[in-house]
Amino acid sequence: MPAENISQGPLGIIAGNGALPCAVAESLIASGRDVHIIGIRGEALPAIQSYPHTWIKWGEVGKLFVTLQGHGCRDLVIIGGVKRPDLANIKFDFGAIKSLPFILSLTIGGDDHVLSSVVRYIEGKGYRVRGAGDVAPELLVPKGRLTGKGPSKDDEADIETALRVVDALGRLDVGQGAVVAKGHVLAVEAAEGTDAMLERCAELRKRRVRRKGGLSGVLVKAPKPGQEERVDMPAIGPNTLRHAASAGLAGVAVAAGRVLLADREATISTANELGLFLVGLDWPPLADG
Amino acid sequence: MPAENISQGPLGIIAGNGALPCAVAESLIASGRDVHIIGIRGEALPAIQSYPHTWIKWGEVGKLFVTLQGHGCRDLVIIGGVKRPDLANIKFDFGAIKSLPFILSLTIGGDDHVLSSVVRYIEGKGYRVRGAGDVAPELLVPKGRLTGKGPSKDDEADIETALRVVDALGRLDVGQGAVVAKGHVLAVEAAEGTDAMLERCAELRKRRVRRKGGLSGVLVKAPKPGQEERVDMPAIGPNTLRHAASAGLAGVAVAAGRVLLADREATISTANELGLFLVGLDWPPLADG
Repeated sequence: MPAENISQGPLGIIAGNGALPCAVAESLIASGRDVHIIGIRGEALPAIQSYPHTWIKWGEVGKLFVTLQGHGCRDLVIIGGVKRPDLANIKFDFGAIKSLPFILSLTIGGDDHVLSSVVRYIEGKGYRVRGAGDVAPELLVPKGRLTGKGPSKDDEADIETALRVVDALGRLDVGQGAVVAKGHVLAVEAAEGTDAMLERCAELRKRRVRRKGGLSGVLVKAPKPGQEERVDMPAIGPNTLRHAASAGLAGVAVAAGRVLLADREATISTANELGLFLVGLDWPPLADG
Repeated sequence: MPAENISQGPLGIIAGNGALPCAVAESLIASGRDVHIIGIRGEALPAIQSYPHTWIKWGEVGKLFVTLQGHGCRDLVIIGGVKRPDLANIKFDFGAIKSLPFILSLTIGGDDHVLSSVVRYIEGKGYRVRGAGDVAPELLVPKGRLTGKGPSKDDEADIETALRVVDALGRLDVGQGAVVAKGHVLAVEAAEGTDAMLERCAELRKRRVRRKGGLSGVLVKAPKPGQEERVDMPAIGPNTLRHAASAGLAGVAVAAGRVLLADREATISTANELGLFLVGLDWPPLADG
């Protein structure tokens, strides 16, 4: 969607955890657009308080829409991870009770189903849900090498193998990542998340003999085909690089333009300090051959 | 290989951990064949001492071949898992030192490479390495339902999805298993092993809301195409079922004739007690339409 299509009024940012909500806000403000952050309590960082903001609790669906309306937000970005809330302990407000049939429908099906249902529901109320990469494209990982170090020949072979795994899994609607070291697929990401997968790799490699000094192996991350990228785009940040280093990996390679960089400077400097490479790969891998 | 091809002399069983080495021994003895178990210290269970046996330590390659020769074993089965030994702390005997170039060659490449190299090395010395399922076919999971309970319609859909994941991964030489619940791929096995994957699923599901009583989801296990099945055949046992139950799964489905059952009676009774199903699936899934 071209930039001139952005409607007037501040951009509403529904904020989960991590640095991305503030990064989106900064980027929008720098380009002259107002924002209003709606932080989910227990999820969003206190840092959102540096921007125009409102706190809501899980279940305050009515308050969410009143806030959006009150501030004239028609465009929304939903960004930042959330812990899965415990439905049993949520206090629903009146707006939520009106939405109960919808909320109950969310209890069926996988995560992707939930996310796309939420988007459809919000859009049904006349709002437009936009991707963070769409409103703030400079948050996307660019093509090419971002670090002093680049992948070695061996790393490139590992990237190739991991890409094949991620691509095959993506077609089956699974995962966003894989770890390959010396041609050996150490781990495949499904529902556990990238950090948990990297921690597992660190454990695995501790138990192994063949760790001849030096880092080896790569993490590859890319979206699934058909993934609801507006609300579920893969993201990496300094922590991803720290976990990758703990797992003894040589670097991280992600789909350029399809993965968000939570904190560009800190991510790149962390990679450089740890001696890891970080590259943006052509994506999809086989197009434009 | 037909049974009449089995050479004379006792079958040598190189024993790692778990119940399978003794199960193979029992099966062979019942069919009138002698065995000699060579237990790896720190790996094989003390139960091997009920059979003719010799203990060896990691690194005692010379003693291994002297033992095989002394007992007239020409056919070998290598069975039971091993923790990956710490090469730095192994004391190599003279026989091993002669094999040092071979042992060093093992430090390069993935697990499959190591296993097939070991098989080639042993066969190069005039021994014949046979699969446990080949000498004791009754240890293989048969086709069909083994438990009181069978898969529900939903479970069958989950089995179908998991089969597609395992099949796609197998073609990329990854993993032997996947867990799917309500159409959602919870976990994919790579290097961590089935038990670790199931523990992860248990953790994941603890953190989720949508656990509406009742068990749901399946573990599917099958060999990779080209897997060295003689020494690396997938196996399940009572513990697999216990882990599956902890992960809230409804059952376990494995490739019939291609997965070993470590302790048939205990595995089936554990499944029945826990209310899980256990089935052997046609394998490969798409052959013989």
